[in-house]
Amino acid sequence: MTLIDHPATDDPTTAAPSPQERADAWFASFEAALAAGDVPAAAGHFAATSFWRDLVAFSWNLTTVEDPGGVADLLGATLERVAPSGFATSEPPEEADGVTTAWFDFETSVGRGHGLVRLVEEDGETRAWTFLTTLRELKGHEEPRGTRRPMGAAHGADKNRTTWKEARQAEAESLGSTEQPYVLVIGGGQGGIALGARLRQLGVTALVIDKHPRPGDQWRNRYKSLCLHDPVWYDHLPYLKFPDNWPVFAPKDKIGDWLESYVKVMEVPYWSSTVATSASYSEETGEWTVEVEREGRPLTLRPQQLVLATGMSGKPNIPVLDGQDVFRGDQHHSSAHPGPDAYAGKKAVVIGSNNSAFDICGALWEHDADVTMVQRSSTHIVKSDSLMEYGLGDLYSERALAAGVTTEKADLIFASLPYRILHTFQIPAYEAMAEKDKDFYDRLEASGFRHDWGDDGSGLFMKYLRRGSGYYIDVGAAELVADGQVKLAHGQVTHLTENGVVLDDGTELPADVVVYATGYGSMNGWAADLISQEVADRVGKCWGLGSDTTKDPGPWEGEQRNMWKPTQQEALWFHGGNLHQSRHYSLYLALQLKARAEGIPTPVYGLQEVHHLG
Amino acid sequence: MTLIDHPATDDPTTAAPSPQERADAWFASFEAALAAGDVPAAAGHFAATSFWRDLVAFSWNLTTVEDPGGVADLLGATLERVAPSGFATSEPPEEADGVTTAWFDFETSVGRGHGLVRLVEEDGETRAWTFLTTLRELKGHEEPRGTRRPMGAAHGADKNRTTWKEARQAEAESLGSTEQPYVLVIGGGQGGIALGARLRQLGVTALVIDKHPRPGDQWRNRYKSLCLHDPVWYDHLPYLKFPDNWPVFAPKDKIGDWLESYVKVMEVPYWSSTVATSASYSEETGEWTVEVEREGRPLTLRPQQLVLATGMSGKPNIPVLDGQDVFRGDQHHSSAHPGPDAYAGKKAVVIGSNNSAFDICGALWEHDADVTMVQRSSTHIVKSDSLMEYGLGDLYSERALAAGVTTEKADLIFASLPYRILHTFQIPAYEAMAEKDKDFYDRLEASGFRHDWGDDGSGLFMKYLRRGSGYYIDVGAAELVADGQVKLAHGQVTHLTENGVVLDDGTELPADVVVYATGYGSMNGWAADLISQEVADRVGKCWGLGSDTTKDPGPWEGEQRNMWKPTQQEALWFHGGNLHQSRHYSLYLALQLKARAEGIPTPVYGLQEVHHLG
Repeated sequence: MTLIDHPATDDPTTAAPSPQERADAWFASFEAALAAGDVPAAAGHFAATSFWRDLVAFSWNLTTVEDPGGVADLLGATLERVAPSGFATSEPPEEADGVTTAWFDFETSVGRGHGLVRLVEEDGETRAWTFLTTLRELKGHEEPRGTRRPMGAAHGADKNRTTWKEARQAEAESLGSTEQPYVLVIGGGQGGIALGARLRQLGVTALVIDKHPRPGDQWRNRYKSLCLHDPVWYDHLPYLKFPDNWPVFAPKDKIGDWLESYVKVMEVPYWSSTVATSASYSEETGEWTVEVEREGRPLTLRPQQLVLATGMSGKPNIPVLDGQDVFRGDQHHSSAHPGPDAYAGKKAVVIGSNNSAFDICGALWEHDADVTMVQRSSTHIVKSDSLMEYGLGDLYSERALAAGVTTEKADLIFASLPYRILHTFQIPAYEAMAEKDKDFYDRLEASGFRHDWGDDGSGLFMKYLRRGSGYYIDVGAAELVADGQVKLAHGQVTHLTENGVVLDDGTELPADVVVYATGYGSMNGWAADLISQEVADRVGKCWGLGSDTTKDPGPWEGEQRNMWKPTQQEALWFHGGNLHQSRHYSLYLALQLKARAEGIPTPVYGLQEVHHLG
Repeated sequence: MTLIDHPATDDPTTAAPSPQERADAWFASFEAALAAGDVPAAAGHFAATSFWRDLVAFSWNLTTVEDPGGVADLLGATLERVAPSGFATSEPPEEADGVTTAWFDFETSVGRGHGLVRLVEEDGETRAWTFLTTLRELKGHEEPRGTRRPMGAAHGADKNRTTWKEARQAEAESLGSTEQPYVLVIGGGQGGIALGARLRQLGVTALVIDKHPRPGDQWRNRYKSLCLHDPVWYDHLPYLKFPDNWPVFAPKDKIGDWLESYVKVMEVPYWSSTVATSASYSEETGEWTVEVEREGRPLTLRPQQLVLATGMSGKPNIPVLDGQDVFRGDQHHSSAHPGPDAYAGKKAVVIGSNNSAFDICGALWEHDADVTMVQRSSTHIVKSDSLMEYGLGDLYSERALAAGVTTEKADLIFASLPYRILHTFQIPAYEAMAEKDKDFYDRLEASGFRHDWGDDGSGLFMKYLRRGSGYYIDVGAAELVADGQVKLAHGQVTHLTENGVVLDDGTELPADVVVYATGYGSMNGWAADLISQEVADRVGKCWGLGSDTTKDPGPWEGEQRNMWKPTQQEALWFHGGNLHQSRHYSLYLALQLKARAEGIPTPVYGLQEVHHLG
């Protein structure tokens, strides 16, 4: 995204203290107010329009409060318990356009945190405009990394020595039989294994289960031309980065192999070919009863925490249409599409016009199928090159790396931009893309394609965060639509015939194969299937910010609903998203679980209310 | 090692230019002499006692020349062709104790290099005391990394698209059948795969073959308590570093798994379960004919370059003793030792007193065997902790990392210390260890163990570089000898009986198992087996510096004989050593091979002469 538009500051040109002095003074004053327990004074350190985003450190939640009033509310509820202290910049602050940006460390009563503040001048005072606080580690439970890494060899002579291999084998044999996992993670894609790796590092007994035969099959089994649409710098997993020869956009089988290696190298406890068939929670025992089938063999697991990491794109939306039973060709959801090889010379109808629809249309066209895309509603398209340049380049690129913006820093910079105003940072980037690629958009619209830039022109990222759908990152297939190589139809499908698809305007599209690129449901659909509709309804919709835009109904939540944070169902968690989110938010979810495993009190500030059932 | 003792400098206290100014002035003057083709003037930039070590950049060899005379000889032979230019410091030089140390970049006619110089004042002039030049890349053949990384996805629509998986499969099918590897690497341990990874990055068609069923089995198949004796910071492979939770001393099965993952992630072309049975070179065609058996199926390969990476510890020395045919117990070389499990309560005799002997004695003792070690000659022992602290800590440790000494920098710093004087840097470190662990050494010698510090007191690293044997890094078993838990016998074995081992003083040691921890032969023994005794003799001894110390006969070679550099047998190369050497020297070997593959002229300066047959 394009960083950083910011509010005007009073007078950035007067003889001013250095950025370091300004930040030091603000932290000293803020910490003094905190130490004195003076909530109004502490809240007074925030600008009239301001945002404090806290990831677990204060709130045991992912939450954003706004303005001094919100800050006072958060501190009123948490200050005494959290006892924050030791605020200090961790590197020299920088100043640009009247905003002083400072990275800082701090401590709480139970942990150590890291954050990013943007300070502005208001009413002659230095005040925080955005303030991000994140928990990095729990005291006494620091990860065994770097100077704390394990020795590996146990030096000395010991008649009861166990080798690493023996210990691993013993653990594999006991887990799930004589020893129950404290955390069960259902779903072993990037989300599940990133969390599994973090939990292992934190010493939490956990188990990741997945229905596929091998880790990475979640990617391998998708359509064969698939490559990641996000670039390598955005996609690193925790602990183990891709080497610097890794492709910008990794092919699906290569990322599959990487995930499989990752599970082994990070020693993630992982059961392949395992499905969970039911789960229920006992308030009384504080335990889940989860029935699973491991390689076909039934087994009961009794974890205390249950994480659904089945993917925000996990549960296919398959439309129910008259005539599906009489249609003689192949029909399947995009997630089950086998690839184009069998369809050379055949007529293919792809229903939908988002990422998967375009990729599948492109691959079918490349294999000489006669392809028609059915557009049901308008779609946002950006060219991959332009998205990299204008949308991600400042944070995730070789350019960013050269400027000192590591992936970890980029994650926190991105996290520090309040969701409430994130669209205002995004709009200019998409305006720039519209300008740069004007010729393409003109041709696309001339082809009849209905294109949009999001409800407020804020483009792809906001669509992703708000609704997780409605866009295509163009890696080539949009051009096929623009120039008519892939045919375009509009409307809703009313029914199928023996040989085709009929739209609501009466158009009949002959078809040998119908692909439902119709997206995915909310993750709480998984909870309904696995646990109960009652629990799914208690939790409500997953994903979305409450922006009151298309497919993201209000009221405003300000964080992604139910993701990586406590839900209305005790001991039930949702984890997922792209590789970036899997990497970044797995830390906060892992720390929440670790604290519970250790019996550290975790009173949740601002537990989200439920407004939508799914 | 302890860095840096250095020669006295004339007068480091006079009002002096800054380190940057001193380095800049020296480089400007040196380069002017080079540009003018004035060899005597260029050589005059070196101190009376000085060392220029060149890794491929000037010499297409690994070579060290000494003093202005040696520099003049090297430049006389290479200057016109190499046309070095663009010498410039790559970071601010540092000065300590009268030595200015500067990292620098430079170019040659065909490549880009990096180096490290130590400048001293002599006769009122700034002169080089040590000068390291290394080739980093060949112009026009830069590796696809970072900003040059591949795209992965091929954007656009293409009816002839090949996916990554399809391309990998096609490559696997053609390699060795319709397409011959330019380089065949025999041996797929850390050496072979590090080289395989680099060759792949450089676009050289190569194939690594190994006799084991899986990559990493080279480690997995060793005795079960084995952990690396070198620490993690010393052990990284190229491109993909261990994550920071990696144990200091990795257990053998864990490193085995890592190597297996590495082969996959780095896409190293690798044939498991493949043995080479014979090889011969045709001067006429410039091609090797290598007969291999891949999973039992015979096959002929015709590479143009042959690399033996079968391990400096590859070919076991198994003594031939009378009575081996009548001995009723188990007997095997240490490399074939199955571990201690079967020997609880049994009598074990371990012949040898180096690393493997101690590790095996320790593991047998832990499993309640009655263990006797037969010491045939004196051994050098250092405590692992002390070795890490005094021997490696400045270069390979968390402390080094915190001081900015990355593994890559450490490799070059180590490479910059001339072998001729390396022992002088080492002696003080081992004196410090002797002092710190005095109590241990007193007890060890009181037990009758014959201990030494190397011929000149320079300790473990020099023993490794000179002879690759004669030491033990104590991780516990030496204490068992010191306190008599493992019994000690002295002498040479004359023969075996049905039930025991007889020494030259007539002592008979009852034995249920005899382990020959008797070390390994020179790598050219592999060449004799695979190619011919004639070629093995033409190449001569591998390893050793020519230091004229025990098991490292002179004359002085100044680099490790025949390792990673051209040999007297055209197109035959030896690669190997510990993980550090496999990482570091694989670059220079890969660049030598790449240049030959591309037809870049590679006249070798100072091709080593052969003085010893094996």
